Amino acid sequence: MNYFRKMKKELFEELKTSLLELSHIGSAMALLHWDQEVYMPKNGAEFRAKTLANLAGIMHEKFVSKEFEKLLKQISKLEKNNELNKNETIIFSEIWRQFSREKKLPLEFVRDLTETCSNAQSVWAEARKKSDFKIFLPFLEKIVELKRKEAELVGFEDSPYDALLDEYEPQMTSQEVSIIFYELKEFLVDFLKKIKKSKIKINPTILNGKFETEKQKKFNEFVIGKMGFDFGCGRLDTSTHPFSTSFNPEDTRITTSYDEKNLFYSLSSAIHETGHALYEQGLLSENFGTPLGESISHGIHESQSRIWEKIVGQNINFWKYFYPKLKKEFSQPFEKISLEEFYKNINYVKPSLIRTESDEVTYNLHIILRFEIEKDLIEGTIEAKDLPKIWNSKMKEYLGVNVPNDASGILQDVHWSGGSIGYFPTYALGNLYSAQIFDAAKKDILNLEKEFALGNFEHFREWLRNKIHIHGKTFSANGLIKEITGEELNSKYFIDYITDKYKNIYEL
Amino acid sequence: MNYFRKMKKELFEELKTSLLELSHIGSAMALLHWDQEVYMPKNGAEFRAKTLANLAGIMHEKFVSKEFEKLLKQISKLEKNNELNKNETIIFSEIWRQFSREKKLPLEFVRDLTETCSNAQSVWAEARKKSDFKIFLPFLEKIVELKRKEAELVGFEDSPYDALLDEYEPQMTSQEVSIIFYELKEFLVDFLKKIKKSKIKINPTILNGKFETEKQKKFNEFVIGKMGFDFGCGRLDTSTHPFSTSFNPEDTRITTSYDEKNLFYSLSSAIHETGHALYEQGLLSENFGTPLGESISHGIHESQSRIWEKIVGQNINFWKYFYPKLKKEFSQPFEKISLEEFYKNINYVKPSLIRTESDEVTYNLHIILRFEIEKDLIEGTIEAKDLPKIWNSKMKEYLGVNVPNDASGILQDVHWSGGSIGYFPTYALGNLYSAQIFDAAKKDILNLEKEFALGNFEHFREWLRNKIHIHGKTFSANGLIKEITGEELNSKYFIDYITDKYKNIYEL
Repeated sequence: MNYFRKMKKELFEELKTSLLELSHIGSAMALLHWDQEVYMPKNGAEFRAKTLANLAGIMHEKFVSKEFEKLLKQISKLEKNNELNKNETIIFSEIWRQFSREKKLPLEFVRDLTETCSNAQSVWAEARKKSDFKIFLPFLEKIVELKRKEAELVGFEDSPYDALLDEYEPQMTSQEVSIIFYELKEFLVDFLKKIKKSKIKINPTILNGKFETEKQKKFNEFVIGKMGFDFGCGRLDTSTHPFSTSFNPEDTRITTSYDEKNLFYSLSSAIHETGHALYEQGLLSENFGTPLGESISHGIHESQSRIWEKIVGQNINFWKYFYPKLKKEFSQPFEKISLEEFYKNINYVKPSLIRTESDEVTYNLHIILRFEIEKDLIEGTIEAKDLPKIWNSKMKEYLGVNVPNDASGILQDVHWSGGSIGYFPTYALGNLYSAQIFDAAKKDILNLEKEFALGNFEHFREWLRNKIHIHGKTFSANGLIKEITGEELNSKYFIDYITDKYKNIYEL
Repeated sequence: MNYFRKMKKELFEELKTSLLELSHIGSAMALLHWDQEVYMPKNGAEFRAKTLANLAGIMHEKFVSKEFEKLLKQISKLEKNNELNKNETIIFSEIWRQFSREKKLPLEFVRDLTETCSNAQSVWAEARKKSDFKIFLPFLEKIVELKRKEAELVGFEDSPYDALLDEYEPQMTSQEVSIIFYELKEFLVDFLKKIKKSKIKINPTILNGKFETEKQKKFNEFVIGKMGFDFGCGRLDTSTHPFSTSFNPEDTRITTSYDEKNLFYSLSSAIHETGHALYEQGLLSENFGTPLGESISHGIHESQSRIWEKIVGQNINFWKYFYPKLKKEFSQPFEKISLEEFYKNINYVKPSLIRTESDEVTYNLHIILRFEIEKDLIEGTIEAKDLPKIWNSKMKEYLGVNVPNDASGILQDVHWSGGSIGYFPTYALGNLYSAQIFDAAKKDILNLEKEFALGNFEHFREWLRNKIHIHGKTFSANGLIKEITGEELNSKYFIDYITDKYKNIYEL
């Protein structure tokens, strides 16, 4: 072993030890967040915010410490001398990218942001309950102010929004997003018009009934178990806003929320969050702590949830398998509804108020609206106090719906209260990725959809795992898409998917 | 403001900031522990152990850091110049005591101990399930080895066991415990003989029935709510071994475990853990982080759980209020059982296998047995591999019972698997404290027990809160007992309480 190799080995050991320590603090924080949403008693909120702020502070301190910087700079020299192998380069480059970003954020700023957001989440929940944006406004204003400051601290070329977007979808700019979203909007507006003119009228209220929460929960567990959710390494719980979180590949948790009249309210969230969870459970435990054990981006993560929720979970073949089981558990109202009728009803398209309940065709319009609003907010062309008015007017313009109150309008999403500005576009990017990835899967796996009809999801899950999950951050988002599909991300696959599916359903 | 006062103010601000940071790490660890027992999926154990070990390591590093030591030494100078007021002295002395202890433990040792214990707890659970001590033995051996090492590192005068006991019951020595336990054993052995000779024969199986877990849970919530458990600041959950934990005064959680045949299995644990929780909920939030916001000792903590579980919860007056409610919820089998008969049955005395299910009279013998075993283990006069034999022989000798298997013998308690050696004696000390404290409460509150009969526990709870809880560590355990009762801890009150109560029940 030459001198460089020996030094490199030691430096990388040191790097891995530091990264593991950081990841374990991250795991503790993820549990504190999970508990806050799922089991924490009401009055625990204030202390919880402080506990989270403290851990975030410790993490930040360690990450930007002089010792850690010195270590990274030593490895940086090796990199410049081409002494790093492929995996070492991936690990180092990603950590260096994160380090450079974080170093620009002072400790006081990080603490302030974490504590503000943690408090804001309880306030948002109360505001939503009371459907009163004014309760939440001062917290939102503070968050926007802090996120504008974050963008300034991090730095940007064209728009301050780019600095925030980069946290969730590295290497993507708001200009690129704007272009892709423009194409998508053009298509969707036109396609929605065709659907509205269709003579096929669907009334999905026939799917409503009385579904006991406990029975729903059992059915959800059955479905996600079939998809491959590993209950030895995870849990399904209940929270106001469904989410997934992972402490490590062996403890990944999802939540859903229940509506006793509408079974699909909980089921579709459970399937969606399972898509996320399969990504986390599919990462390699031995890579925990390094970028090789982390998901690529929020957009790619969302592609995994949407591919399962929509492309698979609302596929006729998926229900060829599950519908008889559903009928057995809930003879009312399904007894008298044929599979074909059922399939059309779960794929009913109608512009509506709530993003998480919206259909595949209109969903991206909800996202485009949010993207525009948060971009304008951060660029300072609009202010938080005007949001309900702006929101309601855009809802009218894009989707043609009137927003009756704040709870089903501006207050419906948890994201901004948690400081996640720049996150929303990743949902639509996820949809585009998912269609492009699914097209590749169909080319690779003969009779893929027929397997679904037999209740066999293993083949597809393992394909996703081997093509995406196990690689961690080996590829960038765009690199992965090119690797799997041979093309850059584009909206063609999604547009084709939507066109084919809904031409059939709406007989266009 | 003179120079000293100004410096003192700054130093104390710095101390409080550091202590708060440590306490928030402690809160996160408490949640990780709670979750491990209550909701964590099976395969999460290995990573959880590492996450806990990492946080323990960070806490230790910060606590024994050069900066913190420098700060304490500066305050130490002020103390020597009599510049500290009463509260500052309490805070400083306690932190200095803890610091001196912890400084003797190297980081590697702390990590090793935390990780070993976290792994050992899953193994213990499995061993108990399979009733096979051999599965647990290698982990117990490792723990004993580490705890012997801990005693050596900490230092001691007479017995290495004193160094461990001091962690749970500061200022108490194993010699003092041995003397008190000797008196107690003398009395109990004699008194048990009298009970055995009594012509009163009680058959508590008449209290058995079929009690749905969900209904039990609701009744438990009703009872502990009446006692004053604040559900806005806490939760009741289910775990194998009931426990209480507190992240801060506004988030205190208890668990119980259910037996559908025996309602009192869950209820008595719920009441017991509520006694602990009321102590934690009774600490002052503004003192969180400093010793003024911490309970005094494990013995005093246990006095609060036992005073509620046994002295109040098995008092005839408590049931004058609750028994009609219990009858209403569970007409079978209570419909035909009179209050007096019920009271005798819940106070049935019989030597038995399981500590947590044992009665007030025999309970302390279970503790004395454990105390003797762990003292001998640490002093090296016995070895872990021989424990089942020693356990079973002592059970025969003290309680006259034959232990049929490891699960209901040596493997019944979680404590050793968690590294808690030196903890057990605090249970019996808690019983002694509780009787002595209750005697004082009766002198202070006119008609105390009559209030129980009316379902009024507020007066008593507030008395405990004002006499004990809100003071944090203002008093030492012995100082508190002297303050409240005018006497040092002694076994007289407990002996009198047991004698009076059971003379009546068994017509001695």
